[in-house]
Amino acid sequence: MNRVYMDHASATPVRKQVMEAMLPYFEEHYGNPSTVYDLGTNIKQVIEEQRAKVAKLIGARAEGIIFTSSGAEANNLAVKGVAFARQKKGKHIIISSIEHHSVLNSARFLERMDFEVTFLPVDQYGLVDPERLVEAIRPETILVSIMHANNEIGSVEPISELSAICRDKGIIFHTDAVATVGNIPVDVNELNVDLLSMSGGSLGAPKGVGALYFRENVRLMPLVHGGIQESGRRAGTENVPGIVGLGNASELAEKELPDKVKYVRKLRDLLVEGIHKQVDHIIYTGHPDYRLPGHASFCVEAIEGEALIFMLNQEGIYANTGSACVSKALKISPVLVAIQIPPEVAQGSIVFTLCGSNRVEEVENVLEKFPFCVKKLRSLSPLWGEKRAA
Amino acid sequence: MNRVYMDHASATPVRKQVMEAMLPYFEEHYGNPSTVYDLGTNIKQVIEEQRAKVAKLIGARAEGIIFTSSGAEANNLAVKGVAFARQKKGKHIIISSIEHHSVLNSARFLERMDFEVTFLPVDQYGLVDPERLVEAIRPETILVSIMHANNEIGSVEPISELSAICRDKGIIFHTDAVATVGNIPVDVNELNVDLLSMSGGSLGAPKGVGALYFRENVRLMPLVHGGIQESGRRAGTENVPGIVGLGNASELAEKELPDKVKYVRKLRDLLVEGIHKQVDHIIYTGHPDYRLPGHASFCVEAIEGEALIFMLNQEGIYANTGSACVSKALKISPVLVAIQIPPEVAQGSIVFTLCGSNRVEEVENVLEKFPFCVKKLRSLSPLWGEKRAA
Repeated sequence: MNRVYMDHASATPVRKQVMEAMLPYFEEHYGNPSTVYDLGTNIKQVIEEQRAKVAKLIGARAEGIIFTSSGAEANNLAVKGVAFARQKKGKHIIISSIEHHSVLNSARFLERMDFEVTFLPVDQYGLVDPERLVEAIRPETILVSIMHANNEIGSVEPISELSAICRDKGIIFHTDAVATVGNIPVDVNELNVDLLSMSGGSLGAPKGVGALYFRENVRLMPLVHGGIQESGRRAGTENVPGIVGLGNASELAEKELPDKVKYVRKLRDLLVEGIHKQVDHIIYTGHPDYRLPGHASFCVEAIEGEALIFMLNQEGIYANTGSACVSKALKISPVLVAIQIPPEVAQGSIVFTLCGSNRVEEVENVLEKFPFCVKKLRSLSPLWGEKRAA
Repeated sequence: MNRVYMDHASATPVRKQVMEAMLPYFEEHYGNPSTVYDLGTNIKQVIEEQRAKVAKLIGARAEGIIFTSSGAEANNLAVKGVAFARQKKGKHIIISSIEHHSVLNSARFLERMDFEVTFLPVDQYGLVDPERLVEAIRPETILVSIMHANNEIGSVEPISELSAICRDKGIIFHTDAVATVGNIPVDVNELNVDLLSMSGGSLGAPKGVGALYFRENVRLMPLVHGGIQESGRRAGTENVPGIVGLGNASELAEKELPDKVKYVRKLRDLLVEGIHKQVDHIIYTGHPDYRLPGHASFCVEAIEGEALIFMLNQEGIYANTGSACVSKALKISPVLVAIQIPPEVAQGSIVFTLCGSNRVEEVENVLEKFPFCVKKLRSLSPLWGEKRAA
């Protein structure tokens, strides 16, 4: 049975060219980049080349890239790093109520460190209203963190509008772009952000590497203290193969992006249209237009998302329900709560995230199996019986 | 020219068997371990198997292993994690004055967070005196962190003696064992420690992975907040290939350790003896007996360590001067200052760290080239001229 993988937001296979580029850095070019002999200095040079490639993908200067071990670490470094570095200016930060757990729980940690956090509400599509941001800002606000796009519902936030508000007031603006880099054009200057997080694992690079962009003169307290790696902003021997992976994946992503956007949007639209035709009592979550091109998310009434995932899994189809990072911790996604999906409906959450490697036949396969699985699960659901009786 | 690599404390090549074990986890088994379908749950299982292998190497229970991105991250998590979790009990911590920069700078960060830090002095061999630890402990002391062995001078600290003092008083004891795991027997129960850091890059696993052991009931504030990975103690999608690498490298290390210890000690003794025979005005740093078996460190009078590294590099020999993490930041190592080597002598620091892959012929090669390089550099050194005149 062929695998139909449509959970690219959770993980991507490492791309063949990326793997080839990485391989020499495990057994052959193994020097520590901080050493002064050629085995080390050659690798230091390689790291700087990767920094330039990653920077190019997001329109940044190379020196503005800090390699981290994940998107989550990049988010932690941004939120806590700015908070600790700027706490003398004020101890208030603002995040949206649908941030990834790595931003959300960094903010909650800061609350325990006597910071105040405002959680901005979102509308029914998950979008932050710039007016609400203006209202939330106080004289002591030092940081605003609003994600570029949300993984669970695909909505893309009006970042440049939001960041402009902060720029005028000297407030640092961070965006978690893990869901967008490589999926839509991302330019730190157009977005007008001070900090931007990205991840390798969602880009065809390996797990275990991510990056944080920082604008010149943005002060950051390191998260990992120690040696002087990453210009003193992130200690620890560099994950050289991972960094080579991220650099090469970024280079590929940059080349392929325009075609990829069109291609996956077409596939996605085919999937969404097909599902709507065949399955009733289903809600398309997230914004219909301002959304990631490869992203399709639904709440299917009267069934449990997890059960649906299991059934699809048996058919060789891989999709997700809510965020991978919390799928075992919480039955109902805080994101779906924030966009006011009723809890009994939110339980039926299912998310497809497509990539350039998906094909039309795979979408057709899903359109064949998905309605069958929903029907089967509903036939076993007391909720569905009640709904039909009513 | 054959490469003679004797800087295994800075980095090790990934071992062939380790690489083979890792390979399937890049392109084939790429699922996110937090997902509920088989592609994810299978990988979750693989991670737990690696946790057991790492635990076995250090005599720990599997659930006591937290995978991190480096030894530096493990040290940060231990020091800051305990400090933030226990700060209501007291805000005083004790570290030795020769800790790795990841412990030292974590402590300095805590000073900025209103903690008090005592830096314990060491003797001429770099050893901490248990009496000094007893004297430094206060009612508000919550954490002591003393490294198992020092990378620059090879000395192995009397950890079980030091930890016993803390155990009696309910103070958490952490040891940075990056230099020892895989090089000498390490058992968390014999050492009687609450927390222990280790790294993949010094063990034949790839860069970008490390681990922190924690004893049951030791509370830790996460360093990377977010999802529930690593039992809620370290968020971010797991570096699956890296973890598989660390697990397999640990398994190999466990098997090979007894033979390795004897073998590298013999090589090291040959090297040290040969150098002492041929080069005068040279100080063997660190303890002569309580030291890592593959570790030989010297201060060569009247020359600069970095110049010596460059000359050896040209001969295909790779050694280090001081710690890799700071070799560009500082000319004189704080460790050598702590053991009271005069600054002009400390400049001539050179460190050889041998591994099971080194051979007798390589040592003979070093013994042929090293005296020549020293002689050449001394012939150019004004300091040497003065010394000979006097």
